[in-house]
Amino acid sequence: MDMFGKISRALGLAVAVSAACLAARPASYAAAPAGDSHPVLMLTSEGVAAMKDASGTVPRFDAAVDVLLGEAETAVARELCVPVPKDGGGGYTHEMHKQNYYDMYNCGIAWQLTGDERYAAKAKEIMYAYAQMYPTLGYHPLGLSSVPGKIFWQTLNESVWLVHTSVAYDCIYDWLTAKDRKYLEKNLFYPVAEFIMDGTPDNRANNATFNKMHNHGTWAVAGVGMMAMAMGDDDLLDKALYGSDKTGKNGGFIMQLDRLFSPDGYFTEGAYYQRYALWPFVTFAQCIDHYRPELHIFSYRDGIIIKAVETLLQLAYDGEFFRYNDALEKGYDAQELIYAVDIAYNADRSHKDLLSVARDWQDRVLVSDAGYAVAKGIQDGEAEPFVLKSSFFRDGGDGNEGGFAVMRSPRADLNSAVTFKATSHGLSHGHYDKLTFAYYDNGNEIVTDYGAARFVNVEAKHSGHYTAQNKSYAMTTIAHNTLVADERSHFDGKIKVSSKHWPEIYYVDLGEKAVQTVSAVDTAAIPGVRMQRVLSLIDVPFLEYPLIVDLMKADSREAHRYDYPVHYNGHMISLNVPYERALDIMKPLGTANGYNHLWVEAEADGADGTSSYTWMTGDRMYSISTATGPDTEIYLVRTGANDPDFNLRSEPAYIIRENAKTSHLFASCIETHGRYDMQVEQSANLVHSCKGVEVLYSDSSHAVVRYDFINGHSILYAVCLDNPDSGMRHTVSLEDGSSVSWQGPVSVEMK
Amino acid sequence: MDMFGKISRALGLAVAVSAACLAARPASYAAAPAGDSHPVLMLTSEGVAAMKDASGTVPRFDAAVDVLLGEAETAVARELCVPVPKDGGGGYTHEMHKQNYYDMYNCGIAWQLTGDERYAAKAKEIMYAYAQMYPTLGYHPLGLSSVPGKIFWQTLNESVWLVHTSVAYDCIYDWLTAKDRKYLEKNLFYPVAEFIMDGTPDNRANNATFNKMHNHGTWAVAGVGMMAMAMGDDDLLDKALYGSDKTGKNGGFIMQLDRLFSPDGYFTEGAYYQRYALWPFVTFAQCIDHYRPELHIFSYRDGIIIKAVETLLQLAYDGEFFRYNDALEKGYDAQELIYAVDIAYNADRSHKDLLSVARDWQDRVLVSDAGYAVAKGIQDGEAEPFVLKSSFFRDGGDGNEGGFAVMRSPRADLNSAVTFKATSHGLSHGHYDKLTFAYYDNGNEIVTDYGAARFVNVEAKHSGHYTAQNKSYAMTTIAHNTLVADERSHFDGKIKVSSKHWPEIYYVDLGEKAVQTVSAVDTAAIPGVRMQRVLSLIDVPFLEYPLIVDLMKADSREAHRYDYPVHYNGHMISLNVPYERALDIMKPLGTANGYNHLWVEAEADGADGTSSYTWMTGDRMYSISTATGPDTEIYLVRTGANDPDFNLRSEPAYIIRENAKTSHLFASCIETHGRYDMQVEQSANLVHSCKGVEVLYSDSSHAVVRYDFINGHSILYAVCLDNPDSGMRHTVSLEDGSSVSWQGPVSVEMK
Repeated sequence: MDMFGKISRALGLAVAVSAACLAARPASYAAAPAGDSHPVLMLTSEGVAAMKDASGTVPRFDAAVDVLLGEAETAVARELCVPVPKDGGGGYTHEMHKQNYYDMYNCGIAWQLTGDERYAAKAKEIMYAYAQMYPTLGYHPLGLSSVPGKIFWQTLNESVWLVHTSVAYDCIYDWLTAKDRKYLEKNLFYPVAEFIMDGTPDNRANNATFNKMHNHGTWAVAGVGMMAMAMGDDDLLDKALYGSDKTGKNGGFIMQLDRLFSPDGYFTEGAYYQRYALWPFVTFAQCIDHYRPELHIFSYRDGIIIKAVETLLQLAYDGEFFRYNDALEKGYDAQELIYAVDIAYNADRSHKDLLSVARDWQDRVLVSDAGYAVAKGIQDGEAEPFVLKSSFFRDGGDGNEGGFAVMRSPRADLNSAVTFKATSHGLSHGHYDKLTFAYYDNGNEIVTDYGAARFVNVEAKHSGHYTAQNKSYAMTTIAHNTLVADERSHFDGKIKVSSKHWPEIYYVDLGEKAVQTVSAVDTAAIPGVRMQRVLSLIDVPFLEYPLIVDLMKADSREAHRYDYPVHYNGHMISLNVPYERALDIMKPLGTANGYNHLWVEAEADGADGTSSYTWMTGDRMYSISTATGPDTEIYLVRTGANDPDFNLRSEPAYIIRENAKTSHLFASCIETHGRYDMQVEQSANLVHSCKGVEVLYSDSSHAVVRYDFINGHSILYAVCLDNPDSGMRHTVSLEDGSSVSWQGPVSVEMK
Repeated sequence: MDMFGKISRALGLAVAVSAACLAARPASYAAAPAGDSHPVLMLTSEGVAAMKDASGTVPRFDAAVDVLLGEAETAVARELCVPVPKDGGGGYTHEMHKQNYYDMYNCGIAWQLTGDERYAAKAKEIMYAYAQMYPTLGYHPLGLSSVPGKIFWQTLNESVWLVHTSVAYDCIYDWLTAKDRKYLEKNLFYPVAEFIMDGTPDNRANNATFNKMHNHGTWAVAGVGMMAMAMGDDDLLDKALYGSDKTGKNGGFIMQLDRLFSPDGYFTEGAYYQRYALWPFVTFAQCIDHYRPELHIFSYRDGIIIKAVETLLQLAYDGEFFRYNDALEKGYDAQELIYAVDIAYNADRSHKDLLSVARDWQDRVLVSDAGYAVAKGIQDGEAEPFVLKSSFFRDGGDGNEGGFAVMRSPRADLNSAVTFKATSHGLSHGHYDKLTFAYYDNGNEIVTDYGAARFVNVEAKHSGHYTAQNKSYAMTTIAHNTLVADERSHFDGKIKVSSKHWPEIYYVDLGEKAVQTVSAVDTAAIPGVRMQRVLSLIDVPFLEYPLIVDLMKADSREAHRYDYPVHYNGHMISLNVPYERALDIMKPLGTANGYNHLWVEAEADGADGTSSYTWMTGDRMYSISTATGPDTEIYLVRTGANDPDFNLRSEPAYIIRENAKTSHLFASCIETHGRYDMQVEQSANLVHSCKGVEVLYSDSSHAVVRYDFINGHSILYAVCLDNPDSGMRHTVSLEDGSSVSWQGPVSVEMK
């Protein structure tokens, strides 16, 4: 540990910084001074002076300060408690250590703003208690993590502890005596930083994580790097920036910026973890920008950090992030987003739409230079509308590993979104569901993604960790709205295989237009099967709401059982074929791969023609109509079977099954219709309009489907599946001798 | 039909009006003139003049006018469509005829406000179309109602049609020629009124309904009475007021005011139908007050109409009415409440708390004299806070048929309510659940009442009517949070028997105090069993939130199987005894009386001591702890079995069962605890504090229960069950030789 204590402070040289990183910073940004002075992480001395000057004149910021001072006051009053580590997430010692880092953080900032020594003294008191205990600690006794911490059961939490503690230390640095600083750095800050960076001689797992291209690695470098800046240790900072070997080739924050986001600012694990991952990114970047402004960190890689914030904000519906992969309910009001939005705006004040997000969706701002800038910007009327757009985000560091699409109707009166997941696996939080779609409308999840099977912090639910059902159900393919063959998950649920493949994006046509389409092909997820989905969102003149048209095509030489599940939120209203309801006995749909978790509530034979299913969510109806045959099977299922600990939520799904098919085209449309006004008890349009779905033509390269509606309306939907050239003309001959011609990969003819 | 056309207009004499009815009207009310002039129903000519004068100065009223004019404009543009009646609720002709009465109503008022003849002409056009069709109609072809209408499948809707049409007619009365009026009255208005009042020679069901003490009767008299006033037919009005025989002894509005509300303004069917019933009451009363102000209708029976409005507003949580008996989701924003609140305020402007309800919960006001008064009152800053209080409402016309209690904590930081139902049956919409309790907290239903099994207006769900499961499940006792013996419903589900009995209210002690209690006894619901519930809401100094203490006592000479169900909303978190989960096969709990609709998800043996069950709703935990023994059985169930048409919602319950017991005391407490903050991922107090519930003493007259909590705290809860005298002292000797003494029916000792 002494190694660090003795390292003299060197000049901070940006040895491995790329050209992009040195690009000019935005003109609107007033450069902050690099610092020998404190504070220099989340706050600057200039910023603090400005905040003090403005006290009482920016209500949104005043409110944030009031909350922080209230928390700091509570912290001052709280009896010191730094318990010997024992519990996991949600348990007493875990939550107490979290409380302590929030207390130090709040007290540090409160001291800066008020000059009231009680705050500084409280932060110091807590730091000293840790400094006394920390050297006595071995690994956390819980033994549940492969990367165990000392204060917490996993190093991840320890990194978060260090991030907060470094801000606190930065704030009270000048108030502490040199002796205090020496004692704390030697007994606590260097040991924690060294442990997070290198681990112990017995267990180098931490070192691997520190240098890993993973959000846990980002927390690690942020913690270590921020404490390095607080202590003024530029060599240690370089290790955080360029990896523990300082080469910039084997790890570090800069490499994470290169690798962990796609060129479109998409984080491979999905929106839920992009939120979490962004926190250390923006926080560390904010501090770097204060401490080493010459790095122009916010301009690095074409402004990737701010792009990642804007992309995450687009990956949301009604302020809540799209639920896919491992995901729980989180949205714009999550703590991380306060950091992300405030810091991104502070870094580039041309992004005035961020002010709208802060104003409309977030109840607070940071008490920091960034938070003050946002509060002031809103106050000064600088906010511009935040516009949700149809978007396609490429996945992969180079942007060539599939992607994620969002379709939104251009109609201003609508609040809806269709998502399409054709990304790479998404590291350890990815699910096995290539080509999944989901639908959000009218403030509700409509066609749903289960997300994660987890109850964060709830001790009674597997200590708050991911439950066993996350793997046995939530990650399986049948838990998603995509194609399943032979009751087996994509890649048979093997992450090593799945991580090597991603769909080929076939066609993307989004924008403010009546027909938007996205299509992708996957040939690896199901051995021997080529599957392609073509998904359109169409503003149809003769329908109340936009129509979703969905073609899911499977091509294979061998016969398979194909399942096409639609998970939904709402209450079953009707199915247009007779069904057999499970009345006094209920059994699971299958025995493995997630099928074992689905109770069969009802089963039916498909219509010889079109099967239509309607459910109600909120005050609207949703109907899916699908071309089926007499051999088609239909299942209405509900999660909860083989779930000994009640870890699964009880949710319904509608499954269409085709048996012993080599190739098959699932041709469907999903209508949104009707209004069920409980206020005045008036209703309208509660019955779906689609009267028939007929596959007029289907082979491995083309498909033509006619959707018939009431009042003689119809949509002819024709696609070419093997050449997305927009200029190419296609003609197919139908069974009745007629032919259909069109140009380009997708043609939609409405009449 | 000619009988009516020839009746000359007579002076309106209030022959049967009681002394109370003639009481002085509130001083603040400016008397409106009785009317030879039109309009005189919802609007008065003075009111219209005031509204026109104020145009542009009262934004809330302007907005309501804008909406109404928009609707009227749509109506003018709509192609005339008065279809031959065919469909039931939700069907095309049904909804079209509803649309038509709204169109007439909106156009009539729009004509008054604007003088634009297009509106008057449209209302007239629709009226003429009905006048041409109506004489050709027989009974509605659907044949589903025992009180069938002609335009609609049931007369009820026809009465509502007449209420709206009478307002429209009143508005355009002066604009129509005498010839128009004669034609319309002869061919439409009298025939409809006569049909609603008398039925046909073949079927006198309508006459029975017209004179019935029932909300359908109120709609009937309101429709007929309002049209009588529009036409200026005082004799017909007298029939509406005093029954078709005009004696006031066999029916009519005045008798309904005497009978349908308790002295506390409680309507026996419960909050959901009180909302619906109030609509014709307040509407008809408003018109009577304009047309026959000398009746002082709003002062009648000590102001019963306004009292009923205030009582209904108290029967709510978070703006939604308590769900019990036949009930769906309805609240302060329901159309009927706009009428109720506006008209009640207009009638007695000392009720300034009503302005808060209108301002905070309702998005619009009526376009009427009353709506204008409310909008103006809010504008002038007259609104006073609407305060939700702990309340007990007596049931029954004389107030001696049990009652309904609401307990709310005096803590200002809480938003919660405990309800206790000890009412009479509640006519045809009552359920079989004496002594049921429910709990609302944190914006959610926590301990729930299923309410009604119905999908209003959804054709696919039994044409929008109550489904079969309403009787087979929703009405049964096991569907409620009360005591069930031998898997049979109270009164064996026989309404004729149930309607003759109600619980005896034993003790009510509510108010702004730490301990609130309500208790009632029922000896009729379960033959041979005396059941008594003692329910307290206690602000406990050492607990985060108030505690619910619940003693449910059964006394019998014969042995019974007793079930104590707790229906809840949320996700199962933990049970403190091992349980056997239904993994790959699931079966119902029983075969009849609602038990057949419950899937058994898990079963367990009770703890030999205290069984504790925790669930999570929103961001809080809820735990029930109950004294149990080794023979106790526990079931976790979910609705949905034996439900062939998916008419039931999928909802969980926790059931404690005692077998072969003569007498038994279910002693429980329900804790609210913890905080699960997803925004910052912090949680606290997720584990319940109650460590033990011990019945120290229990016989037919006394019970003493000790609740033990962490940190050495405890609550000693002692009750006397057979004498509510507050001065009486009680002493019981415990098994260990010690004794407990207390005074009054309930004693709570916390330490």
